Amino acid sequence: MKTITGELFNTDTAYADFGKKADEIVSVSGYVHRIREMTGFAFIILRTARELIQCVYAPEFSEYRLDEKLCEEACVKITGKVVGSKDRDGNDRYELQIHDIKILSLPAETLPIVINKKQLDGIQLNTVLDLRPISMRNPKERAIFKLQEGIARGFREFLMKNGFTEIRSPKINFAGAEGGTNVFKLDYFGKTVFLAQSPQLYKQALVGVFNRVFEIAPVFRAEHHDTSRHLNEYISMDFEMGFINGFEDIMNMETGALKYIMNLLKTEYAEEVAILHADIPEITEIPCMKFMDAKELIMNKFKYTPSDMKDFDPAEEEMLGKYAKKELNSDFIFITHYPSKKRPFYTMDDPENPEFTLSFDLLFRGLEITSGGQRIHDYNEQIEKMKKCGMNPDAFETYLMFHKYGAPPHGGLGLGLERLTMHLLGFKNVREATMFPRDINRVAP
Amino acid sequence: MKTITGELFNTDTAYADFGKKADEIVSVSGYVHRIREMTGFAFIILRTARELIQCVYAPEFSEYRLDEKLCEEACVKITGKVVGSKDRDGNDRYELQIHDIKILSLPAETLPIVINKKQLDGIQLNTVLDLRPISMRNPKERAIFKLQEGIARGFREFLMKNGFTEIRSPKINFAGAEGGTNVFKLDYFGKTVFLAQSPQLYKQALVGVFNRVFEIAPVFRAEHHDTSRHLNEYISMDFEMGFINGFEDIMNMETGALKYIMNLLKTEYAEEVAILHADIPEITEIPCMKFMDAKELIMNKFKYTPSDMKDFDPAEEEMLGKYAKKELNSDFIFITHYPSKKRPFYTMDDPENPEFTLSFDLLFRGLEITSGGQRIHDYNEQIEKMKKCGMNPDAFETYLMFHKYGAPPHGGLGLGLERLTMHLLGFKNVREATMFPRDINRVAP
Repeated sequence: MKTITGELFNTDTAYADFGKKADEIVSVSGYVHRIREMTGFAFIILRTARELIQCVYAPEFSEYRLDEKLCEEACVKITGKVVGSKDRDGNDRYELQIHDIKILSLPAETLPIVINKKQLDGIQLNTVLDLRPISMRNPKERAIFKLQEGIARGFREFLMKNGFTEIRSPKINFAGAEGGTNVFKLDYFGKTVFLAQSPQLYKQALVGVFNRVFEIAPVFRAEHHDTSRHLNEYISMDFEMGFINGFEDIMNMETGALKYIMNLLKTEYAEEVAILHADIPEITEIPCMKFMDAKELIMNKFKYTPSDMKDFDPAEEEMLGKYAKKELNSDFIFITHYPSKKRPFYTMDDPENPEFTLSFDLLFRGLEITSGGQRIHDYNEQIEKMKKCGMNPDAFETYLMFHKYGAPPHGGLGLGLERLTMHLLGFKNVREATMFPRDINRVAP
Repeated sequence: MKTITGELFNTDTAYADFGKKADEIVSVSGYVHRIREMTGFAFIILRTARELIQCVYAPEFSEYRLDEKLCEEACVKITGKVVGSKDRDGNDRYELQIHDIKILSLPAETLPIVINKKQLDGIQLNTVLDLRPISMRNPKERAIFKLQEGIARGFREFLMKNGFTEIRSPKINFAGAEGGTNVFKLDYFGKTVFLAQSPQLYKQALVGVFNRVFEIAPVFRAEHHDTSRHLNEYISMDFEMGFINGFEDIMNMETGALKYIMNLLKTEYAEEVAILHADIPEITEIPCMKFMDAKELIMNKFKYTPSDMKDFDPAEEEMLGKYAKKELNSDFIFITHYPSKKRPFYTMDDPENPEFTLSFDLLFRGLEITSGGQRIHDYNEQIEKMKKCGMNPDAFETYLMFHKYGAPPHGGLGLGLERLTMHLLGFKNVREATMFPRDINRVAP
């Protein structure tokens, strides 16, 4: 009987191994990214999973006969000799002298946009998004999402090294977590249910089980406005940790995670960082400023009159970002002790001044990327706070099980993956950092 | 100005390090899992993130004075001396001689169920599920989901080592991927949209970008029936790989992944495997049998008359599982070449006999856990197949971009995380392996 052994018979050679294979014959599969016909020879640029490999065709050494049949976006397997040389900066580079080409498949039509330049030039964002399955074949577009993989991977790896358990909370919920109005409603066998806005209530409950938990998963917000920084579906990176000594523990954990992520990008995603000219921040330590001190700074130093003393508008966030960079030499700044009225019902008030909370936002280059803080763990305190917020504790019975039957001091945060990617890459619109964005006007592709 | 350095000041000592700390004073935080008062002393079992630690209280060496205030499910920090001894099997074990106890929080009420026995005894599954936030505090219940983390982690780690890119496809879709009727509908700013049944169409499109991709994410199926093996929301582990030589490449990748997962569970999740008495399968190679040969075996060897010659019913799957175990000494068996009529529109027909397909299911101990196969990559072939299936290709324009503008030979599979966990642990109901199950009768907690 035929059996499957699980051994992977990969006859392809990775570009990373070309150095060890100089002058040897190897095979590589990929897309024909570009064909440049010269006099008497041709360059065929092969696009593999992560690289572009220059292959040289010439009738002298190629068995294959190049004709019109071979076109861009054909899938091929090229066999040839590895030839090493030096680039302008003196680095090793390798190309392939084509001995043979096996055509695996051919496209039915020519691409409607040019994807084989360094970047997609002069194509409107809406068109890029409409054509995502093919516009992402451009190496720069593709690099955005490979780098995004690295951000999520870094978050996960750091937390797993620090004793966190990965959870997967349900996205079909019986009640809106934060009690807000921006929830998508769904008919569920005759019942009305909601799409999860956040894993908040689940991750708190699971602190009672695993002490430290995290989740990287989609969340859904039925926000009716169309801005450059909001999405109706996005990936939220959340963690929640128990047995904390104070909310500084959460900021420390986030700072550690960000250091780990940035280091991972510089090492394991160096090709993408180079393609994208990404300015990866150096983090040694992150300054903290209290909310009211930040407001004072905005009014006195920047001579700006805030319209709202309970929160920051985007212009104020930018001022704080500039201040942090210029005066404190930091791309990041924590703003702590937000007013109680603007934070959710599970936020712990500051015992020293209950008009403020043990909470924080993290600003990165003048944009808020995280909200977090310590949560209420005492059952009666949480019930009181809910009532004060005009909520009915009876509707949150299963959530309150955690508090009723024992909850440690705990807290956590949430971080939007696309928004962080956007700002790290200096984009102005979060859709540029979202593979398949969902907004008020777009649900396709 | 105050700064956050990202250094984690953890004053707790992990149980794993107790061996190095014998006779030293350490601190450990956790839940009071159990208090056993003896004559003149007491045992306090502390529940940490992953272990139960025995702590001994006696007035002679404890500064703390035990009274009624300290109760089960209190959160505490215990400081004491590490004392080593041997258990019955001669293994090292450590307990803590309590010097002091700091109470961090107290529950408001006593638990409505007993969670501090080895397992939840005599409690109906429905009650266990109703009380998930606290029933999971039982060490055996908790171990199920820690082990489940390991399964998903193993799948991910193996694929990342093999050049796969992690993707996150949107869950709000403009069309039902498989064109079926079992989709949840949603009002999206006046448009009707659907919850993703599978990442199928996205992962195929992304093969054109990254060659090899995987996703671990929720999927939603509006199946109206209530069975022990179906859920309306579950975690699907999917991969899709391009430039394959045949659908055996996919089976090899899965076999490799399963070997890696089982090995990871035996090493990094050994405590949970022990608590759950999990019978982790040994995999050397996995036998393959063609669909029609399997039908013949069922009829001739098991004298069973199939009601449907296009698929297997659960009884037939069990027979094949028994046969694989008894005759082939394997917990797994691949069944290949399913009839064309029962496979989705993107499945590639067998060129040698187009009534059958280049597809497979994987049975594990007599239960189907995977469906996979090679997909159609030629644009015109896919259009023809859609028409033959009564579908309108115009409705799949963005999906077909992948085929139209160049697609390599490719294929992939999907694996239900909860179902695999269930069967690995010998459960009869998939809800036992689901943290917060969603079924026709349940959307809470």
